[in-house]
Amino acid sequence: MSATAAIWSTGAAYIDGRFMPVAEATIPVTDWGYRRSDVTYDVVSVWDGAFFKLDDHLRRFRASMQHFRLNPQESDADIRSILHELVRRTGLREAYVAMDCLRGAAPSNMRRHPANARNYILAYAVPYVWLMPREVIERGAHLIVASNPRIPEVCVNPRAKNFHWADMTQALFEAQDKGADNPVLLDLEGNVTEGPGFNVFAVTDGVVATPDRGVLEGITRLSVIQMCEKLGLPCEVRTVPLAELRNADEVFISSTAGGVMGVTRLDDRILGNDRPGPLTEQLHDAYWRFRREGWHCKPIDYAHAEAAE
Amino acid sequence: MSATAAIWSTGAAYIDGRFMPVAEATIPVTDWGYRRSDVTYDVVSVWDGAFFKLDDHLRRFRASMQHFRLNPQESDADIRSILHELVRRTGLREAYVAMDCLRGAAPSNMRRHPANARNYILAYAVPYVWLMPREVIERGAHLIVASNPRIPEVCVNPRAKNFHWADMTQALFEAQDKGADNPVLLDLEGNVTEGPGFNVFAVTDGVVATPDRGVLEGITRLSVIQMCEKLGLPCEVRTVPLAELRNADEVFISSTAGGVMGVTRLDDRILGNDRPGPLTEQLHDAYWRFRREGWHCKPIDYAHAEAAE
Repeated sequence: MSATAAIWSTGAAYIDGRFMPVAEATIPVTDWGYRRSDVTYDVVSVWDGAFFKLDDHLRRFRASMQHFRLNPQESDADIRSILHELVRRTGLREAYVAMDCLRGAAPSNMRRHPANARNYILAYAVPYVWLMPREVIERGAHLIVASNPRIPEVCVNPRAKNFHWADMTQALFEAQDKGADNPVLLDLEGNVTEGPGFNVFAVTDGVVATPDRGVLEGITRLSVIQMCEKLGLPCEVRTVPLAELRNADEVFISSTAGGVMGVTRLDDRILGNDRPGPLTEQLHDAYWRFRREGWHCKPIDYAHAEAAE
Repeated sequence: MSATAAIWSTGAAYIDGRFMPVAEATIPVTDWGYRRSDVTYDVVSVWDGAFFKLDDHLRRFRASMQHFRLNPQESDADIRSILHELVRRTGLREAYVAMDCLRGAAPSNMRRHPANARNYILAYAVPYVWLMPREVIERGAHLIVASNPRIPEVCVNPRAKNFHWADMTQALFEAQDKGADNPVLLDLEGNVTEGPGFNVFAVTDGVVATPDRGVLEGITRLSVIQMCEKLGLPCEVRTVPLAELRNADEVFISSTAGGVMGVTRLDDRILGNDRPGPLTEQLHDAYWRFRREGWHCKPIDYAHAEAAE
């Protein structure tokens, strides 16, 4: 590998019209995207040289931007080209591809109001990121129910993807303190919401259930719902009380960073035989089989540049 | 002014051991300080060449870091020296001085957990920032009560200063849509909390009241409480229902970015004679008089460097 290729293989980034190696990609400390976490984002995966459900991610990203009144110069078609170009530059066959839209900051001669800032797109492609180490995914995740609740939907809409993660981070520390891999957070009424970067599913008597409110409408969550339909498994999107999760036959989580992943412990309860359950395994296998078969895939043309620098 | 002096006069920054002009101060796009808003901060003001209540700000900054389990290499004495050095480099007599502690990111060979990241300090000094334009402060601010509530304390502790501002930003847009200057947010029970960057006070029958919970314990809020004591004005720190704010004789707000500032409109209600009230004026004048007199001031030695580069 040449030195140039090596620099790009660790990751490629785009910021507001310019491409660069990810190691050089930075944002100003005074940008409200950082300073007020006034930013939205999305993450799409590349597997075996193809984007997965790129249209769904682009649609959600645009909806998130509209929710936060962020209006960058790039169209959806522009963003699609940029993401293709980023992956092409890295040469990665498996990649984690993030796209952010930041508020920016008001020019010094204007009122310091977010409406006066020029919004811009930042995106990068890096080697595929797994939510949890491979060995944890194989044995099944150990979760705790976090002591602190998730930020309520009425304050910050979780369907508009955002970096308001202090509740998640606090719960990640609590999980580590208790020797677990990850936390799941409840809403203020004690119903299941989500964990840091994943949606949650409970399986009871062959029926799959996942929360309808207070959560990100994950693209992998949608894939699970669609796979259940294809496989003839009943799937319900509705309120999931904590008791239902605690008493479930199986629990699993979904994320762009890992697909469908089994949960084998919840607080001090051991689920199944301390191994991912049969329905979880069926969905896990189907997820990767469908992807290998090209389900919702958009191949990347590694030979040709898609966007001008 | 020399070219070098001109570069520094727009602002000086410190990041993890290095000083630089603020225009060159950036953070990596992959840093969790940005990417999960996993960061705390504080802001202290410099007026007439002296820090105001620097010890209080440093104490609160350390408490915020401890709350979020952030542990940078710099001691409080180090941070104090860095802040003095930043202002000295700018030569500014009036400055807005921010200090952040960011999570950083876990090295690629370690588990992606915040506990594995190396935390670091970022700080900068720029020309003094006013929360609102001078003419708005003089006529009195027009506030609205935001439709969306503030993120509850049980999810993210507002006393540990953080950038979880999506609720504030949404309310800032609502205020602008309605032709107002700023919003005030309620908690989920309908009591007054705070606005973007300020605490709120209601004055009724000569008694000053400010919320005790769900708010940042602002240093200027503390100054108001102390000034009330010095001036013999009764001041109560307790729950403030919205009705009390709506029916108050006077309303004012406090911020490091502007001190004590009168409010003359709340939604469609005009307070007093559409001018800041007499008690508000008394506290506003006392605030700037006390500061001129050196109350809680730490002068900056502009001639001598305090920290080695």
